[in-house]
Amino acid sequence: MVMIDFDKSGGLVPAIAQDADSGVVLMMAWMNREAYEETLRTRRAVYFSRSRNRLWRKGEESGHYQEVREVLVDCDADTILLKVHQIGGAACHEGYQSCFFRRVEGDDWKIIAEKVFDPKKVYQK
Amino acid sequence: MVMIDFDKSGGLVPAIAQDADSGVVLMMAWMNREAYEETLRTRRAVYFSRSRNRLWRKGEESGHYQEVREVLVDCDADTILLKVHQIGGAACHEGYQSCFFRRVEGDDWKIIAEKVFDPKKVYQK
Repeated sequence: MVMIDFDKSGGLVPAIAQDADSGVVLMMAWMNREAYEETLRTRRAVYFSRSRNRLWRKGEESGHYQEVREVLVDCDADTILLKVHQIGGAACHEGYQSCFFRRVEGDDWKIIAEKVFDPKKVYQK
Repeated sequence: MVMIDFDKSGGLVPAIAQDADSGVVLMMAWMNREAYEETLRTRRAVYFSRSRNRLWRKGEESGHYQEVREVLVDCDADTILLKVHQIGGAACHEGYQSCFFRRVEGDDWKIIAEKVFDPKKVYQK
């Protein structure tokens, strides 16, 4: 059995979430071993929040869970790709479907997407 | 002008390469500021190799360059998404189109793709 190489990067590996149906890349976050194992067990995406220094069950506040359809591992066994169904239609806390909603154009960044929800209504104080 | 936050992770940010046409996620690598700026300037993907500790012009050995169609930046400005055209049809040094050629199935990893090329023929000693 091959194992994810959590040691290479100090316990955390990058995890990419991609919409299983449309192929849109939704976000990139981090997983430690505990997050990875809970993701496999529950089939809901669990990450490790570096800023909060704890497990981050995606959707725990917004209700916008990610149902995990497939878990893929790269050639070096140090990056994870989740194919997910995004509840609520948006992965980004700013209300966009994808966190990658800005395109580099010359010296500027241009917003290329429409908001799916209003963050002020989803995230309560 | 918004800037990529290279300082957050010690000078390196994750960069995801996605096939611009099919939407297949090809690979994840790292960029420092120099790699990012050269990528924008040349419209070919340039990463920073942590193992070789130097700029890695993707395709420099294999000839399998990545022509960059779009550069996207995430909400936290610390992850980059490249939409690319992959010369040679395969991004992975093991000969697969995508580095994510294995799926987690229970306790096993199953190869779910066919090789596009034979690595022994592409990478000479």
